[in-house]
Amino acid sequence: MKYIESFREGETVNEIYLVRSKKSDITKTGKPYDKLILTDKTGSVDAMIWDPNSAGIDDFDVLDYISINGVVNNFQGANQLNIKRVRKCGEGEYDPADYLPVSDFDIEEMWTKLIAHVNSVDNPYLKKLLESFFLDEAFAKKFKKSSAAKAVHHGFIGGLLEHTLSVTNMCDYFSKAYPMLNRNLLITVALLHDIGKTRELSDFPQNDYTDEGQLMGHIVIGAHMAMDQMQKIEGFPQKLSGEVTHCILAHHGEYEYGSPKKPALMEAVALHFADNTDAKMETMKEIFSSTNEDGWLGFNRLIDSNIRKTSN
Amino acid sequence: MKYIESFREGETVNEIYLVRSKKSDITKTGKPYDKLILTDKTGSVDAMIWDPNSAGIDDFDVLDYISINGVVNNFQGANQLNIKRVRKCGEGEYDPADYLPVSDFDIEEMWTKLIAHVNSVDNPYLKKLLESFFLDEAFAKKFKKSSAAKAVHHGFIGGLLEHTLSVTNMCDYFSKAYPMLNRNLLITVALLHDIGKTRELSDFPQNDYTDEGQLMGHIVIGAHMAMDQMQKIEGFPQKLSGEVTHCILAHHGEYEYGSPKKPALMEAVALHFADNTDAKMETMKEIFSSTNEDGWLGFNRLIDSNIRKTSN
Amino acid sequence: MKYIESFREGETVNEIYLVRSKKSDITKTGKPYDKLILTDKTGSVDAMIWDPNSAGIDDFDVLDYISINGVVNNFQGANQLNIKRVRKCGEGEYDPADYLPVSDFDIEEMWTKLIAHVNSVDNPYLKKLLESFFLDEAFAKKFKKSSAAKAVHHGFIGGLLEHTLSVTNMCDYFSKAYPMLNRNLLITVALLHDIGKTRELSDFPQNDYTDEGQLMGHIVIGAHMAMDQMQKIEGFPQKLSGEVTHCILAHHGEYEYGSPKKPALMEAVALHFADNTDAKMETMKEIFSSTNEDGWLGFNRLIDSNIRKTSN
Amino acid sequence: MKYIESFREGETVNEIYLVRSKKSDITKTGKPYDKLILTDKTGSVDAMIWDPNSAGIDDFDVLDYISINGVVNNFQGANQLNIKRVRKCGEGEYDPADYLPVSDFDIEEMWTKLIAHVNSVDNPYLKKLLESFFLDEAFAKKFKKSSAAKAVHHGFIGGLLEHTLSVTNMCDYFSKAYPMLNRNLLITVALLHDIGKTRELSDFPQNDYTDEGQLMGHIVIGAHMAMDQMQKIEGFPQKLSGEVTHCILAHHGEYEYGSPKKPALMEAVALHFADNTDAKMETMKEIFSSTNEDGWLGFNRLIDSNIRKTSN
Amino acid sequence: MKYIESFREGETVNEIYLVRSKKSDITKTGKPYDKLILTDKTGSVDAMIWDPNSAGIDDFDVLDYISINGVVNNFQGANQLNIKRVRKCGEGEYDPADYLPVSDFDIEEMWTKLIAHVNSVDNPYLKKLLESFFLDEAFAKKFKKSSAAKAVHHGFIGGLLEHTLSVTNMCDYFSKAYPMLNRNLLITVALLHDIGKTRELSDFPQNDYTDEGQLMGHIVIGAHMAMDQMQKIEGFPQKLSGEVTHCILAHHGEYEYGSPKKPALMEAVALHFADNTDAKMETMKEIFSSTNEDGWLGFNRLIDSNIRKTSN
Amino acid sequence: MKYIESFREGETVNEIYLVRSKKSDITKTGKPYDKLILTDKTGSVDAMIWDPNSAGIDDFDVLDYISINGVVNNFQGANQLNIKRVRKCGEGEYDPADYLPVSDFDIEEMWTKLIAHVNSVDNPYLKKLLESFFLDEAFAKKFKKSSAAKAVHHGFIGGLLEHTLSVTNMCDYFSKAYPMLNRNLLITVALLHDIGKTRELSDFPQNDYTDEGQLMGHIVIGAHMAMDQMQKIEGFPQKLSGEVTHCILAHHGEYEYGSPKKPALMEAVALHFADNTDAKMETMKEIFSSTNEDGWLGFNRLIDSNIRKTSN
Repeated sequence: MKYIESFREGETVNEIYLVRSKKSDITKTGKPYDKLILTDKTGSVDAMIWDPNSAGIDDFDVLDYISINGVVNNFQGANQLNIKRVRKCGEGEYDPADYLPVSDFDIEEMWTKLIAHVNSVDNPYLKKLLESFFLDEAFAKKFKKSSAAKAVHHGFIGGLLEHTLSVTNMCDYFSKAYPMLNRNLLITVALLHDIGKTRELSDFPQNDYTDEGQLMGHIVIGAHMAMDQMQKIEGFPQKLSGEVTHCILAHHGEYEYGSPKKPALMEAVALHFADNTDAKMETMKEIFSSTNEDGWLGFNRLIDSNIRKTSN
Repeated sequence: MKYIESFREGETVNEIYLVRSKKSDITKTGKPYDKLILTDKTGSVDAMIWDPNSAGIDDFDVLDYISINGVVNNFQGANQLNIKRVRKCGEGEYDPADYLPVSDFDIEEMWTKLIAHVNSVDNPYLKKLLESFFLDEAFAKKFKKSSAAKAVHHGFIGGLLEHTLSVTNMCDYFSKAYPMLNRNLLITVALLHDIGKTRELSDFPQNDYTDEGQLMGHIVIGAHMAMDQMQKIEGFPQKLSGEVTHCILAHHGEYEYGSPKKPALMEAVALHFADNTDAKMETMKEIFSSTNEDGWLGFNRLIDSNIRKTSN
Repeated sequence: MKYIESFREGETVNEIYLVRSKKSDITKTGKPYDKLILTDKTGSVDAMIWDPNSAGIDDFDVLDYISINGVVNNFQGANQLNIKRVRKCGEGEYDPADYLPVSDFDIEEMWTKLIAHVNSVDNPYLKKLLESFFLDEAFAKKFKKSSAAKAVHHGFIGGLLEHTLSVTNMCDYFSKAYPMLNRNLLITVALLHDIGKTRELSDFPQNDYTDEGQLMGHIVIGAHMAMDQMQKIEGFPQKLSGEVTHCILAHHGEYEYGSPKKPALMEAVALHFADNTDAKMETMKEIFSSTNEDGWLGFNRLIDSNIRKTSN
Repeated sequence: MKYIESFREGETVNEIYLVRSKKSDITKTGKPYDKLILTDKTGSVDAMIWDPNSAGIDDFDVLDYISINGVVNNFQGANQLNIKRVRKCGEGEYDPADYLPVSDFDIEEMWTKLIAHVNSVDNPYLKKLLESFFLDEAFAKKFKKSSAAKAVHHGFIGGLLEHTLSVTNMCDYFSKAYPMLNRNLLITVALLHDIGKTRELSDFPQNDYTDEGQLMGHIVIGAHMAMDQMQKIEGFPQKLSGEVTHCILAHHGEYEYGSPKKPALMEAVALHFADNTDAKMETMKEIFSSTNEDGWLGFNRLIDSNIRKTSN
Repeated sequence: MKYIESFREGETVNEIYLVRSKKSDITKTGKPYDKLILTDKTGSVDAMIWDPNSAGIDDFDVLDYISINGVVNNFQGANQLNIKRVRKCGEGEYDPADYLPVSDFDIEEMWTKLIAHVNSVDNPYLKKLLESFFLDEAFAKKFKKSSAAKAVHHGFIGGLLEHTLSVTNMCDYFSKAYPMLNRNLLITVALLHDIGKTRELSDFPQNDYTDEGQLMGHIVIGAHMAMDQMQKIEGFPQKLSGEVTHCILAHHGEYEYGSPKKPALMEAVALHFADNTDAKMETMKEIFSSTNEDGWLGFNRLIDSNIRKTSN
Repeated sequence: MKYIESFREGETVNEIYLVRSKKSDITKTGKPYDKLILTDKTGSVDAMIWDPNSAGIDDFDVLDYISINGVVNNFQGANQLNIKRVRKCGEGEYDPADYLPVSDFDIEEMWTKLIAHVNSVDNPYLKKLLESFFLDEAFAKKFKKSSAAKAVHHGFIGGLLEHTLSVTNMCDYFSKAYPMLNRNLLITVALLHDIGKTRELSDFPQNDYTDEGQLMGHIVIGAHMAMDQMQKIEGFPQKLSGEVTHCILAHHGEYEYGSPKKPALMEAVALHFADNTDAKMETMKEIFSSTNEDGWLGFNRLIDSNIRKTSN
């Protein structure tokens, strides 16, 4: 397959890509044209159809897979595809895995481990709260598909699950290393801390911020989702309910990262560290896995340093 | 009346005060004593009863009004009252207004103006949302009594109402000066922006952060209250619901002041300015009203400057 | 008219533009060429005349209007015009309004409202101070033409007047909402707060920072202009003079925005809020007015957030 | 002499002090009393006269020297003098040097060196500007008496002169080390950079911020003083005038230290470093000179570090 | 035993304390006196001997244990002991554990676990490096006695060992959770990251910053100690040596916390999180263990939030 | 000579350049190509050899001088050279001074002045320390060749020497202006403050960060080099050794600039100012020397302001 990241100016391309967006417009001289964004798992490219009504151009919509013939141009410093012919493809002509990034781990195996954590919680209210989410089929289906980010780390199908499992495993370790931690609370909030991401980000292939995500953010969405469920569980202790909500709200640790409260409980502090550690470890893993360079890779904004792989 | 702010070391005091807290303990030598916090509208003072079982000491509880006889001491640089006699008072012996700070404006008159703003909103969904709060008798009663702060500005009974009305008036002005603003949305969020304070702060005379207030803050509480109501209103447009929530979340304007989102809509920006302007104007008004000093008053943390009254 | 913002690589352009700058140089091979900046109300473009001594190239100077024939190239990612022929135009061939941005409001109507504010001040010293500026013909002429910014908001002819009027209107509202404010002082400093911009920015079409503007900034220039006038008004109270100067100096509110003093008077705080609110409202208005996009518009540096138009 | 810094609770004091402030008030019980601040070169102390109308209490005013008899008490953690008798002193009974801090260097010798710097400037406009200040008798008298700070460094009579001379010397060194510097400009702004302090601070013994100082600060006052003079010098080049003003405005180097402009000219950068270096060197010199402690002295806010004397 | 933290004004105290410092001086009236700091495991108190040459006052030195008789006074808001009699004690009269804070865990058991980590490293150079420290008897003795802080967390004998073990355990967990981590490097730097503290802080009972600690800090001291040893190990790979040093230098994670480099290697990031997590967990554990209060404890500077114990 | 900074798209180039890097790769279609970086004293350019095995392409290596024939293309907004022919040059065909930037001052003359500073130190331990570096032939050779920066200021051969001499001269001035400074210590640390740069940066023509430089930085490297030598000098006073190390560590003045300690000694403060002043003066000198522009040059990141040359 000809991947988008390998495009070079002047190349002719004959390949199938996924249509991520499509807009119709007219030129200054009044002629219609279509502007697309095509995508595969290596990236995206703008594409122009200057004669959309010609014979060689099939009808198609966003999220269709299309086989195109075109040429790579340079427009204002970026690649742009000039498309000559378009054919809409049917299932079987392409492998979706070429178009959408996905976790390296088996999703069902990760899910099983996650459910084991749910079952390990023995406070009845917290267990009911967890089950209201993770035993709900629609939620589970959505959760498994979600990414944990638009970009940066865990930005792939299953990414939310992979990150949540990793954070919960670490919180489990913390609860053993620091017995003063309330394990039931900590495991609960580890499992729930990013549930708001199921609504903050749209499904693949868009995997982009929803309107709700832009306006509220996954922290507030997730806290609201948890509060809603806790209100429905009879007898849920009020103090405990506040603590669950607080840990979700505070898990980014700093105001400037969108937490409206700083961690005030020991479990909130522990959750913040587990979340942050996993984010940074995964970020570096993704970067180092995607390059053969052994030297310095330049400044990385998330790590806030020039970085390099360790020698071995 | 002998006000607490006028206490001087060595004075004997015979007066009625409100009991804000009471703790019983024993001294190193095993003798029981009571430690109280007494309050009036000018402040609070620690008070000790070294012989709580003596004849002159009536039984009483927190929030009782007691007539005391005692002497003002200096303990570690602060006034402390040594109480010799305590008599519990009945209603009629004291005027509650001497003990609890209250708005200078008439609460019912302000309420009428607030309801007029509610009635001026002509989007049916937003109006229903507002009515679900302001036409609810329990909420209205609570709202009228609430202060807008533990300290700083509007820290008195009716303070939340006074501040909300002032912010809504200013948003009304803004909607005329900047016609691009969506008036219905702006008036709605002006009225709702601080409703979370009814749960963040306990009633007077405590007027202190609740556990929920500490863990979540009034911004998230208020956003959650609004979301809860909007979910119950059939057909409430999803985009509009996100916008209402966003404006409440963003009204502090900066992450470091507890807003998990920065204002992204024109109405959110306008609300933030109205809230901030009213807070600062009221802060200065309260400071300048409480002093006869015409010169520089020293550094004020909220204004972030040395301040003084303007000449006239 | 063919606007500069619509240029696309490869287009041939025949149109009249305003010459904003012109520099003559020689190429590596010793041949003379001219480098111009051409402008219309939609933007600017670099333009090259590779054969300035050829027959088709008229003599012309900066601020002339020239009719050109040329081709749009891409040079290092930006459009550049290669000019083949130049003809200098006479008045009547073009409409200056196509070349210089101007306020949407009628300048004389705004001026009348501004003068009404001047007349509403009843402190004789402050009134004399205002009249020394606004009744001075040369100043008035300059003030009406000035923009309020090089870019960002109110960056058009009449922009300084429009912004000053809007800020003064809002201060008028504040003086009613907060009676403790000294209205005479507040209206005065609202009217004067940005007078330094008449010297910080050069006239259109340049509308660029002057040397004085770079070295001193409009805040200090404006404060100095006011101080100069107040020194000339006999009997001007010294304390009041300091207060006027302070409000001008502090109107940006923060050191990092160029205010050498933080607002210390109630009127200084009010002026800062009025200025900041109007700047942000106008910024968003200008952005939303210039696009048909209903979704998220991306990160805006001044608002410090991704922004979008509100639904209605 | 019994210095104020040596007062201990319970001591009886018979000594002459300078009256820095005096306020008359009445106690809760309606009895008049006076509250003074007495000062000598080692510090200040609050003092109370509980019976101001008694026989032993002479009439006196602020800035009188009075011989007092009193007892040192502790009031809220600070010393307070209870005064029994007051006698107003005549000249000759006391040595003013015991009451006001003064430079270690001879003021006239420093002045001679300063004038030599003035004379070394050979740009006629800059020389005229300098002479308009330093050859003006009233300014010279005021300048020699001024301190360079309320507290921190150079907070003594002659301090402004000492600091200005030291900064000018350093700028002289810089002009040799970096020949690209415009020596005339640099020496001029070194001499003028803090002239605003003659109006920002009142004379000793108050040495406190004036109203003008609070509202405008010495940077803006000084820039205005220089601009005023430059306007009066015929033919003063406009570009040069802007450069002088800029260097004064920018000499604190950072917005947060009250400079409305960051240094943009090489001379402005050099002046900022000379000013800052001299301030920090003098700060440490004053601290280390006033203690016998050879170890760590604790955190110093200005140096932003725990500090200690160097071994030798 | 009568602990120092329980002193109350007016009490008479007869007890044995450790002498932490002793200074001899003379009063204003020329009489000699001694000023001591006495300590036990609950805190310190200033103590005065006003008549050091009287019969009841034994000779003694710093670090002696003395039996004293005295009275608790309040001096400027703090307790101060007025000592009447002093008797120097011999071993056996007191239990050192009452005077010096010590880890709750058994030091030799922790040491055994630490050595197991040393032995688990299978890179021969790193193992030699670790052995050069941990198999060195003098270093081991010093390391076991050291605290990890002057105040804040792990400020007790064995604290450095307890913290180092906890951090190494967590790094061991990380190396399993994130297989891309170089376990040998990570375990090595976990064990070495705080060795500089053996020189930054003096031994108990002082446990205060050494001159070297003030001037260089434990990060640079520790990095230098490691570099010194690596230079002596023949064939130590240069790249690996840089990586070890880097991880030690970067373990505070931020410049403002004294790290001259930000973590650039995955192991440096992991070490920083392990260090920070353990510091915060231990801080909260120490606070919550020392109080019976279940409510909010007020603002904690290290956690940067008001904090409370979690409900259970 | 045809300098790289003068390249324009489309030009044919026949010139000798220095090969700074060379990588061999294959295209998507399997054909080998070489990617070079060529350099001269005016800059660098990427260069491609698409047919490295053709007859016209000599063998050559990194750091060879090659005579090339090629054409300048634009690739993604930057110049790129397409090379047709390569001939490896011998010594004598080129002048190295055209390829490597070098100080404007004579290196041996600067060295003589530096050694005079070394000889002026009369503390025997400090003198031995200085001699262990500056009398060491290998160190001296390395030091003279080193630049003081990868970019920014003093980024040329002899730059480290020029900067060190200038800083030491200024510290010499400071020691006269502020006699409390310990001259021996100050001159010593001025001479040593940047010795770590000899290892932080590789030699020209690379002049890039070494692995050690990235991992540790010149501050820690230099402090370690000094500590190493001081340990070898018998009887070197421990307190003095800490002071030398501290001054080197703290010379950047702020944590965020890589100093793990803030200046705590008077000499450390003085050194920081000398270093910073020289860096900023040289930065401006280099910028102003390289342009004929008399107006504003735009925002400069290091000076943190828009800058311009001063008028004269």
